[in-house]
Amino acid sequence: MAQKKLGKQTVAFSNPPIISSTYSIVGPKEGEGPLAKYFNLILEDEFWGEKTWEKTEAKIVKECIGGCLGNEKVSNDDIDFLFSGDLLNQCVSSSFGIRERNIPYLGLFGACSTFVEGMALGAMTIDGGMADNIVASTSSHFCSAEKQFRFPLELGNQRPPSSQWTVTGSGTALLKSSGTGPKITHATIGKIIDMGIKDANNMGAAMAPAAVDTLYQHFIDTGRTPDYYDLILTGDLGFIGKQITLELMMSRGFDLKSNYNDCGCLIFDRETQDVHSGGSGCGCVATTFCGYIFNQLQEKTFRKVLLCATGALMSPTTAQQNESILGIAHAVSIEV
Amino acid sequence: MAQKKLGKQTVAFSNPPIISSTYSIVGPKEGEGPLAKYFNLILEDEFWGEKTWEKTEAKIVKECIGGCLGNEKVSNDDIDFLFSGDLLNQCVSSSFGIRERNIPYLGLFGACSTFVEGMALGAMTIDGGMADNIVASTSSHFCSAEKQFRFPLELGNQRPPSSQWTVTGSGTALLKSSGTGPKITHATIGKIIDMGIKDANNMGAAMAPAAVDTLYQHFIDTGRTPDYYDLILTGDLGFIGKQITLELMMSRGFDLKSNYNDCGCLIFDRETQDVHSGGSGCGCVATTFCGYIFNQLQEKTFRKVLLCATGALMSPTTAQQNESILGIAHAVSIEV
Repeated sequence: MAQKKLGKQTVAFSNPPIISSTYSIVGPKEGEGPLAKYFNLILEDEFWGEKTWEKTEAKIVKECIGGCLGNEKVSNDDIDFLFSGDLLNQCVSSSFGIRERNIPYLGLFGACSTFVEGMALGAMTIDGGMADNIVASTSSHFCSAEKQFRFPLELGNQRPPSSQWTVTGSGTALLKSSGTGPKITHATIGKIIDMGIKDANNMGAAMAPAAVDTLYQHFIDTGRTPDYYDLILTGDLGFIGKQITLELMMSRGFDLKSNYNDCGCLIFDRETQDVHSGGSGCGCVATTFCGYIFNQLQEKTFRKVLLCATGALMSPTTAQQNESILGIAHAVSIEV
Repeated sequence: MAQKKLGKQTVAFSNPPIISSTYSIVGPKEGEGPLAKYFNLILEDEFWGEKTWEKTEAKIVKECIGGCLGNEKVSNDDIDFLFSGDLLNQCVSSSFGIRERNIPYLGLFGACSTFVEGMALGAMTIDGGMADNIVASTSSHFCSAEKQFRFPLELGNQRPPSSQWTVTGSGTALLKSSGTGPKITHATIGKIIDMGIKDANNMGAAMAPAAVDTLYQHFIDTGRTPDYYDLILTGDLGFIGKQITLELMMSRGFDLKSNYNDCGCLIFDRETQDVHSGGSGCGCVATTFCGYIFNQLQEKTFRKVLLCATGALMSPTTAQQNESILGIAHAVSIEV
């Protein structure tokens, strides 16, 4: 077995990369939610001076990476590789958001698992001696996602109770081979899990089995139990998916009740913000981590966090062709 | 600088991963072209028993990976990570093609540069001690690509002379930490290059500057000159893009005339197959490499190959919003 591999799916880093800095930009609705004070920038509207939602999303990516590099006075030339991807067809908010940066770019598609996929691959290249400075980034936008995956907003379509609200926002993390900050100690790479779920308005249920598979495998590979972590956090399962994850993990012998949460349940106020089953989208885990969680790691409120981002691998075309919604989840273990 | 980094964009592997095996599946048109005898499987029609082109493309991915693993009697459990991506929205031919494999999956989006992106990242994880066996895969399908990016085939739309023909096919490579086979010695990761080109029927022109940027940087980073290689091969620039690449490289002081070609110019017969400016799509470089080039490396006709896959980062939405077509190119140096 490869020297840094633990069990089937987990990499244990010998020189754990540092998360040196993060930056987050969110839309107005996220800026009215419970995590508002942790975000670096809250937009006043969903357009930010652009003519289309797609251009806005690309601008959010551009400015979010700029903010992160600006935090540390790091220039584009200092970055070895940039990992990014998003939900738009052909991941265009990433590519158009970074087109002027002149940084070697590795495009990802992991749907809403992309942010952790980027952190995991970035950590691998640093630990492997191939990079010193890595940017991991992702984005989503409520309006561009609704338009592409569901219905035009102008239709005013009703949303079922199991539906989730795509977060408008972007999160960027700067990973370094040395310095101060929380360390990425492990990465657990997920497999595709297909439970045959076809309801595109219940993504939490479609993705929860993938989260369970990756969390379970992480514990088996590392020999850890859930109480090792101060916080186990999934990406965007929402209230329904969170409950399923709790139950399925319990049935596999792991009790997560005391230290488990989901970014989709944290980023909006369920009582007042009318988001039904919670937040979703690549931006959900990225902004929650880059805003709230990174702050709490710096404050040492949390010292050990298992961050598990979940993605739904499907397109409107596969849904129309009666295919199920595939789930995937990648996790990184982060310690102060 | 990171220990394995050469110059700005190139990684030099200290334990170069082996390309242990490849497999290729192509459609009927590719099976009538000059490289026919090198492909493992040639389909009789564009559907292969499926009801939609998207399902066919996913089946091609599935069977191609199966063929590659079957070559070596390697099981799914032996594979550490699978890297794949494609041109379809949300990369669904990859995810649906591998959903039953139970292999940790890292989804990529590099448009037609995806195959080399996967080989480069796979080589990094092997060289970094995080994996022993990696699968890199990609696909494209003429009919699903035309439907998604241009016009329904049923429209019988006329194609301008600068247009290229998307290859139907998939290529899979199995990378190992040890064994026999050609070695991946270097990877040069490309930046996004935006020359403002907006003609979606001239992808070769849009991508050629990215190929030039990556090839140039590879020579600068490694200190090599083009004559180091028996063959320098770009992915899918076609006849127009190949000519632009030759001229732009010459203007930068590198003469590629004697040992440069493009997969889009090799896979079809220009005189008889009516493909205008040549082949394109993720499958173009993947099937040409996994079929023809890998065979020639085994036969030692070529001993040193620089494989540079080019991608156009755009979507129909960005084109409609008057954005330009961004180019990117990644290269790997392969030696027997």
